[in-house]
Amino acid sequence: MIIIGERINVRTQVLGDAMRNRDFGPIKDMALKQVKGGANYLDINIGPARKDGPALMEWMVTNIQKVTDCPLCLDTTNPDAMEAGLKVHKGQAIINSTSAEPERIAAFMPLAAKYNAQIIALTLAKGGLPRDGAERCALAAELMSAAMEHGVPLENIFLDPIVVPINGQQEQIPGIIEAIKMFQELNDPPMKSVVGLSNVSNGCPEEMRSLLNRTFVTMLITAGLTAAIIDPLDKEMVNAVKATDCLLNETLYCHSFLDT
Amino acid sequence: MIIIGERINVRTQVLGDAMRNRDFGPIKDMALKQVKGGANYLDINIGPARKDGPALMEWMVTNIQKVTDCPLCLDTTNPDAMEAGLKVHKGQAIINSTSAEPERIAAFMPLAAKYNAQIIALTLAKGGLPRDGAERCALAAELMSAAMEHGVPLENIFLDPIVVPINGQQEQIPGIIEAIKMFQELNDPPMKSVVGLSNVSNGCPEEMRSLLNRTFVTMLITAGLTAAIIDPLDKEMVNAVKATDCLLNETLYCHSFLDT
Repeated sequence: MIIIGERINVRTQVLGDAMRNRDFGPIKDMALKQVKGGANYLDINIGPARKDGPALMEWMVTNIQKVTDCPLCLDTTNPDAMEAGLKVHKGQAIINSTSAEPERIAAFMPLAAKYNAQIIALTLAKGGLPRDGAERCALAAELMSAAMEHGVPLENIFLDPIVVPINGQQEQIPGIIEAIKMFQELNDPPMKSVVGLSNVSNGCPEEMRSLLNRTFVTMLITAGLTAAIIDPLDKEMVNAVKATDCLLNETLYCHSFLDT
Repeated sequence: MIIIGERINVRTQVLGDAMRNRDFGPIKDMALKQVKGGANYLDINIGPARKDGPALMEWMVTNIQKVTDCPLCLDTTNPDAMEAGLKVHKGQAIINSTSAEPERIAAFMPLAAKYNAQIIALTLAKGGLPRDGAERCALAAELMSAAMEHGVPLENIFLDPIVVPINGQQEQIPGIIEAIKMFQELNDPPMKSVVGLSNVSNGCPEEMRSLLNRTFVTMLITAGLTAAIIDPLDKEMVNAVKATDCLLNETLYCHSFLDT
């Protein structure tokens, strides 16, 4: 499974300050630590970035790509900042994200087409959260139509079923697993999928969160999940991902498979 | 998922001695500890028990059922010992096990019918281990026919796909997950399944075994597994089972679900 490292986020104190002060040291450290921990992409969440968005995203992408070959997942709701990042990104980036809302489709699908970027497509519309696997699939079909209209190849789409917290919405969780299976049936080759995993344990006691997160990721990978936005510094999480991939015969077992 | 506690086994030094000396103390302790740890059944493995089998099994069942209401999974290849246990067992026992080999079917299916016991049916024939999901299903169909011929209701059968070690037979593991899914399609209501889990990590470094075992159990439960023979004293394993059941919405989430 593809690991998208979630740790570079403007909402954390240290990295938020580093972004505002253009202090690259802490950002570089966190980028390299995540790559070492097993990240295949690094999420770069600069938030809405209303004032300074384009300059900040350009600075982030340019500098991070000087220290690692790991491709980036550009995470902002500001389309100008997104484009500034895509313009300077080397290799194929991921746009994080569009939803099925018309104005977000209009803002981000053209960028995915223009820069041949991958794009995370949230199965989310104006009406609120989807309630089951079928509603998630209906929104996925809308997003696929929109992609085709804008000339975005379907293999560049990661469908996101929207993970909800078990604490409060437990009855929805099986529908999310079901959606990951159903997404694959929507096209041939199968559609790719992604989740923001840790939301599943939002509001749960701290000592329980890692267990719920890593159990859920194993269940989703077994159902066919392509990628997840997780913390690559959570060793137990990364080991669960590696063990699952190995048991699915997707990576080769050897006695040291956890260390590679 | 149903947990069958694996710890009462004649091949362990302490409990083997306790069985030979009819010293009930250590057996009682292990029975109660496993029930406390979450076991829904206790496996009582007395081995081939050629000399003393019937008397030993009768003694085990009678005494263990004096101290716990937990039903038992009687584990011996000696049909006389099996019958001696079934005769005195209160509630519905599990026979562990028959295979698709004619002489084992002839020995154990009639006992399952006579005592209305459940029975573990290994998808294993004379020719050796099944090689993929399809071979496992073909053997499952044979076992189901044999059950019907002997008047054993299909809901009393637990199909066992035979777990093989990832170390050496990695390419077979996806077929085992597939078999668990396929077994459910063989009847309506779906056929039940069981695995002897820990064989998956046989021959792996010790520090890796628990991770592989609990990751695999999560994958199998997600695929629809009914029961597993595991160690209920392995807290991380039991927590993985509980978290998986909870994420499948099969047990109710509450902040203390791990302690109940």
